Amino acid sequence: MDRLILVTNDDGIDAGGIKALATAAALFGRVYVVAPQEPQSGMSHAITVKTPLRKTDHGTQDNITWISCSGTPVDCVKLAMNKVLPRRPDIILSGINHGANSATSVVYSGTMAAAIEGAINQIPSIGFSLCDYSHIADFTVAAKVIPIILDYYFSHPLPAEICLNVNIPKAKWEEIKGVKICKQTNGFWKEEFDTRIDPMGKEYYWLTGEFENLEPNDSLSDEFALKQNFVSIVPIKYDFTAYEYLDTFKDIRLK
Amino acid sequence: MDRLILVTNDDGIDAGGIKALATAAALFGRVYVVAPQEPQSGMSHAITVKTPLRKTDHGTQDNITWISCSGTPVDCVKLAMNKVLPRRPDIILSGINHGANSATSVVYSGTMAAAIEGAINQIPSIGFSLCDYSHIADFTVAAKVIPIILDYYFSHPLPAEICLNVNIPKAKWEEIKGVKICKQTNGFWKEEFDTRIDPMGKEYYWLTGEFENLEPNDSLSDEFALKQNFVSIVPIKYDFTAYEYLDTFKDIRLK
Repeated sequence: MDRLILVTNDDGIDAGGIKALATAAALFGRVYVVAPQEPQSGMSHAITVKTPLRKTDHGTQDNITWISCSGTPVDCVKLAMNKVLPRRPDIILSGINHGANSATSVVYSGTMAAAIEGAINQIPSIGFSLCDYSHIADFTVAAKVIPIILDYYFSHPLPAEICLNVNIPKAKWEEIKGVKICKQTNGFWKEEFDTRIDPMGKEYYWLTGEFENLEPNDSLSDEFALKQNFVSIVPIKYDFTAYEYLDTFKDIRLK
Repeated sequence: MDRLILVTNDDGIDAGGIKALATAAALFGRVYVVAPQEPQSGMSHAITVKTPLRKTDHGTQDNITWISCSGTPVDCVKLAMNKVLPRRPDIILSGINHGANSATSVVYSGTMAAAIEGAINQIPSIGFSLCDYSHIADFTVAAKVIPIILDYYFSHPLPAEICLNVNIPKAKWEEIKGVKICKQTNGFWKEEFDTRIDPMGKEYYWLTGEFENLEPNDSLSDEFALKQNFVSIVPIKYDFTAYEYLDTFKDIRLK
């Protein structure tokens, strides 16, 4: 088996989720983990331009090579492809994220940004998230689901420009109903900054927020599927053009 | 005139581009600038979750209030809406970015992330970029173009879920041909990390890269328009679902 698999995440190389994903990936090929040395949640598609990157080798075991990188998830993908992997990877897997990346979360997620970076580079890519934010989350169900999805994907590949956003509900194996292909749920975060006063008397603000689902009854949406204990898969593209509005601005004149 | 306008960027509050944008915006209403206190290029849609945010008041002049924020461009939008503005803004303007945000750059851009954050919150939003990376770039042409675009936009508004990615070519006013509504050019960055050795003998890597245009002859693309000295406008949506692939995975079975 000579499939070459790059695994990364945004929770960092020490997270339980990436260990579960690397183990699942190793069933399908030679695995290189190149992951942030520290947690990088909420980093989206950020890249490091002001400082250089560093990497640290953590050894190879059971056909999995472990390398940490000082940068963001997207930095990890770029560094792996240019300075780590022996050749272009056959697939990039990101996660398993500790917490959902359903709905509009995909925009903020470092886990999904790594998968989108794969797609931009025309490499098949999948991001996996478990709907459980705990750093000691139980990945047993995810460890059963992911090989089934990978097995199906390898025999039914999509164009490399499309990556997948897979979310796994927090539920027991017996409770999981199946897999549903979905659209990204529309919604936003209702922020309520937690305002505090520091010892010098100056205000500072902790970002907190709650997701407001704008289409809770849309049966095509990933939030809807997850609530019913389906594994949701959203096919994602990185062309953000709203093609239905290309007819606007036709009569604007500068001079 | 009681239009409330939020201005932000990713080059930081001291950049020449944001001064030009705030001045242009002030022609149309009351302006609040809430911008990063330091440059935040390449931060994409990153949000600050591990540390709290701070803001600093820099005073009000000519109907423009200047406030800097310790976080990312998206943090600036969130903090402004929750802790600065007297009410929900009528429009969010981001930029003027020092350098193009055409093509796939939109995915990495902090400037465009701020506009996309506006769209997620259902607020009309526009990101402006000048195709000149110099920190002493000349914004004279942009200062002529932007009021014309804003004037048109206010009388021809789009749904708030759609934001605009406006790029202005580096050219003289006489050379600018007009405005073109475009699609996001498909392409990727061919990275070539600049590898160096530190005084301790350890490698480190500077991210460098060159854009590879995958569709240089597509006359609908923003890169094509910019090359011909048109101002390009790409309507952008934050629903990343690739709807044309919702038919896949139909026969996957978990059990």
